[in-house]
Amino acid sequence: MRTEQRRQKLQDDLIDAAESAIAAGGLSALHARDLARAVGCALGAIYNVVPDLHALVFHVNSRTLAMIEGEVASSDRLEVGPAIRSNDPPAVVTLARLALAYFDFAAAHTMRWRALFDHHLPVGQTIPDWHLAEHRQLFMNIERPLRTIVPDADAATCMLLARSLFSAVHGIVSLGLEEKLVPLPLVVLRQQTVTVAAAAARGLAVAPSALWGPDASPLAS
Amino acid sequence: MRTEQRRQKLQDDLIDAAESAIAAGGLSALHARDLARAVGCALGAIYNVVPDLHALVFHVNSRTLAMIEGEVASSDRLEVGPAIRSNDPPAVVTLARLALAYFDFAAAHTMRWRALFDHHLPVGQTIPDWHLAEHRQLFMNIERPLRTIVPDADAATCMLLARSLFSAVHGIVSLGLEEKLVPLPLVVLRQQTVTVAAAAARGLAVAPSALWGPDASPLAS
Repeated sequence: MRTEQRRQKLQDDLIDAAESAIAAGGLSALHARDLARAVGCALGAIYNVVPDLHALVFHVNSRTLAMIEGEVASSDRLEVGPAIRSNDPPAVVTLARLALAYFDFAAAHTMRWRALFDHHLPVGQTIPDWHLAEHRQLFMNIERPLRTIVPDADAATCMLLARSLFSAVHGIVSLGLEEKLVPLPLVVLRQQTVTVAAAAARGLAVAPSALWGPDASPLAS
Repeated sequence: MRTEQRRQKLQDDLIDAAESAIAAGGLSALHARDLARAVGCALGAIYNVVPDLHALVFHVNSRTLAMIEGEVASSDRLEVGPAIRSNDPPAVVTLARLALAYFDFAAAHTMRWRALFDHHLPVGQTIPDWHLAEHRQLFMNIERPLRTIVPDADAATCMLLARSLFSAVHGIVSLGLEEKLVPLPLVVLRQQTVTVAAAAARGLAVAPSALWGPDASPLAS
């Protein structure tokens, strides 16, 4: 193998090893020494291919986002159950299914999922653009149905609302899986998640249009 | 002072010192050595009045809950703005105001507020009953208006829904203040919080009654 190929292979191996470590034990299980042992390289060799372990976390998180994107892509098969009314707009059903897909992913891959949120960068370091673009891509799945629910809202408002809706669902999933308030069986927590997600989407569909008017763009304030 | 009075005074002083430390720098700023210095006692004397620092955190968090209760008690003066429709039931307005009160508290007392959620107990230790009772008391502020929104729901369902609604609002406030998704001016984040909280409450008010039927109690499943 040529030098560049070797470098690439070592980087791929390191990402694989970091992925295994995070999937098994979360971010706190990520140690350079273990990674070096797993891929069979010297400790210092890691830093010839990546600047630090944060770079590996971005790659692992990128794979996690792709897995979530996969769940989202097949979410139309999810049964929303009694959380939906017969006269709910289709976009409310879509958003309820997205919430279920998110819940299912977080419940099945809790360590990976937590790593998305527990990853704190050192002061001065920022998330690379290619990774931010993946976040934006994933949020588009929420923005698309949301646009049909609040047709009067401009793009910036939809962008914000999508993130707020996501944050609301994330809050239920997150405090629920951490058993922060009351320990619940997963089936109950799942039902709570879809109930509140559907309610929020339904409530936005009939929200006052003053929220979406041209003068109301939240970024204009 | 008699021994018991001295003990009590030392405990009160330690709680005060722990409160100052947490309010200024969060849980990670809580160190036994600093507390001993602040109250003028020997390091070991701390453990004559409390079993460990976790006990002090419970007392500080208890004060924080009382502060939130105070915000909640005066939340009827909060202006909900365009998030509310003229035909929203009063309970939707009440829940929207609770979300605003929670946002305002978290934004003004971020370190204290974070300590409520960042406090992880060692395995085997549990939250004392008197502190859990304070949590339940605070959630009653959500359960009361919620009951008028979903009159068909039983007490267990309301209890769960109140926690899910709270978790949703907490998710928006929490990811927002941590700037996890997109950095937003506080005024925008506040508006997002009340918009989604009102939407969720409004959407629950017209949710399918199959969710609340006698066979649908989430704890019966």
